[in-house]
Amino acid sequence: MQFSEEVSAWFRSLQDSICVSLEAADGSGKFGSDAWSRPEGGGGVARVLEKGALLEKGGVMYSAVSGELPAFMKGEVKDKNATFYATGVSIVLHPHSPMCPIIHMNVRYFEMSDGQCWFGGGIDLTPHYVSREDAKTFHTGLKAVCDKHNPSYYVEFKKWADDYFFIPHRNETRGVGGIFFDRLTEAPGISKLQRWDFVKEVGQYLAPFYSDLLKKTASLKYGENEKQWQYLRRGRYVEFNLVYDKGTRFGLETNGRTESILVSMPPAASWRYDHTPERGTAEAETLSLLKKGISWI
Amino acid sequence: MQFSEEVSAWFRSLQDSICVSLEAADGSGKFGSDAWSRPEGGGGVARVLEKGALLEKGGVMYSAVSGELPAFMKGEVKDKNATFYATGVSIVLHPHSPMCPIIHMNVRYFEMSDGQCWFGGGIDLTPHYVSREDAKTFHTGLKAVCDKHNPSYYVEFKKWADDYFFIPHRNETRGVGGIFFDRLTEAPGISKLQRWDFVKEVGQYLAPFYSDLLKKTASLKYGENEKQWQYLRRGRYVEFNLVYDKGTRFGLETNGRTESILVSMPPAASWRYDHTPERGTAEAETLSLLKKGISWI
Repeated sequence: MQFSEEVSAWFRSLQDSICVSLEAADGSGKFGSDAWSRPEGGGGVARVLEKGALLEKGGVMYSAVSGELPAFMKGEVKDKNATFYATGVSIVLHPHSPMCPIIHMNVRYFEMSDGQCWFGGGIDLTPHYVSREDAKTFHTGLKAVCDKHNPSYYVEFKKWADDYFFIPHRNETRGVGGIFFDRLTEAPGISKLQRWDFVKEVGQYLAPFYSDLLKKTASLKYGENEKQWQYLRRGRYVEFNLVYDKGTRFGLETNGRTESILVSMPPAASWRYDHTPERGTAEAETLSLLKKGISWI
Repeated sequence: MQFSEEVSAWFRSLQDSICVSLEAADGSGKFGSDAWSRPEGGGGVARVLEKGALLEKGGVMYSAVSGELPAFMKGEVKDKNATFYATGVSIVLHPHSPMCPIIHMNVRYFEMSDGQCWFGGGIDLTPHYVSREDAKTFHTGLKAVCDKHNPSYYVEFKKWADDYFFIPHRNETRGVGGIFFDRLTEAPGISKLQRWDFVKEVGQYLAPFYSDLLKKTASLKYGENEKQWQYLRRGRYVEFNLVYDKGTRFGLETNGRTESILVSMPPAASWRYDHTPERGTAEAETLSLLKKGISWI
């Protein structure tokens, strides 16, 4: 088995195990399963849950696609007929409760026919209401995963997430960040297999963490005010994904599978003109915490 | 008075007259008025109505901004210190009723310090449910405006709108189109003032047309099914504006006034995974009509 096939098979099994865990945490919703293929090569499996007990909408997407290298990457290889292979798992979960955050995770592997290859990925949390305690738990767990593999990972990848998950036109981070990394290749003292071990652990972090969070937040009360705020925050999520997210834009521009790409869109979102929360409210407190460079731990 | 000042003053008065007309048509909602200025030069007036009787959210925006030419346009002039002046009116109206279309209009004038100048603009209609009759009325009126000024305008600008107001990743037009034009300069046999006369008439087209449509559609009944479909269609409107609309992207990338740019966002929108209306429904009929090249007249 080629390394790329091994990675792809592991991602495919990760997708299913995450769906099993999330179905158990939700208690009622079930993930559907849509296999799709891509005319240019490869395909994927879209697993989507709608109207669960705790999850309003969630996508756990696997793909393994291949073909001619996209035009914008051709400068990176000598061979004009170079091909690529890309495989990964992408997740976005939108809970019913505004007291529970949106979560996103992506792990991916990219390989070109000239032998260049790398891993990328990230995981970030987008609370509608920032809980410093939950942010601390989230980051503490991520730091532990990072530290097992390299003492510089957490600091580096946490900053990368702050910079990546940022909405310039709002001057807000998308949420409380997490980690983000791209083009992780072999390096002096770090083998490809060591990178792969790290990526696998990142992929396994979401399900237990978020299952706990779903349980913990399920009993928190909220009303119409909190729902309206949730819709506005989801509007920001839409803005980030459609305007800035590289995966979304790359997918839409290269004739990707639209329904898989846009499964990240929230079930419902809203916009109000020039809305500013009143001072001293929980909403204003949340806005004040959507900044880069906060040490959550 | 310089020509640019004359254009700007006319646009400013157009903004107010449109607000007066729309308030009368709505019967209850009132447009607020927020003046804003831009650190680099100029500013504008944002007039926004929320929660009217017929209009759920509407923005009628005027601006007149100036400053150093944006980086991406510097190739067009010899002088490295070239400046620009841009003025215009932009409108997006989201009605409560799914039986009434969203409407958009923009008229603008752009001038550079080396003397180059042009007009741009457009107006297009985005029904949640396509009515061939309303589309015909809309296009017939636009054709009359165009024909008064140039026999080639309607055919040319209608095609331009079909191509511009298009969502490639959905393979759908945004709605039933209208007209779109850009960089209208003097041409053999067409003076700048003749272009300006045309643009003024385009600017005046929206208010009476849409007031009639608000009245006509106000009595049409609808239920929860139609509201849900409206939210999904508004989701498409969000996708077009954030992914493709040049004005929106230019504004966000050049540090424009975010609240003015994103006033085009709907008050509420939704997304469902892989939703396809059943055959024979009004929703399926609408989708079948969101194509380029339809002769509505």
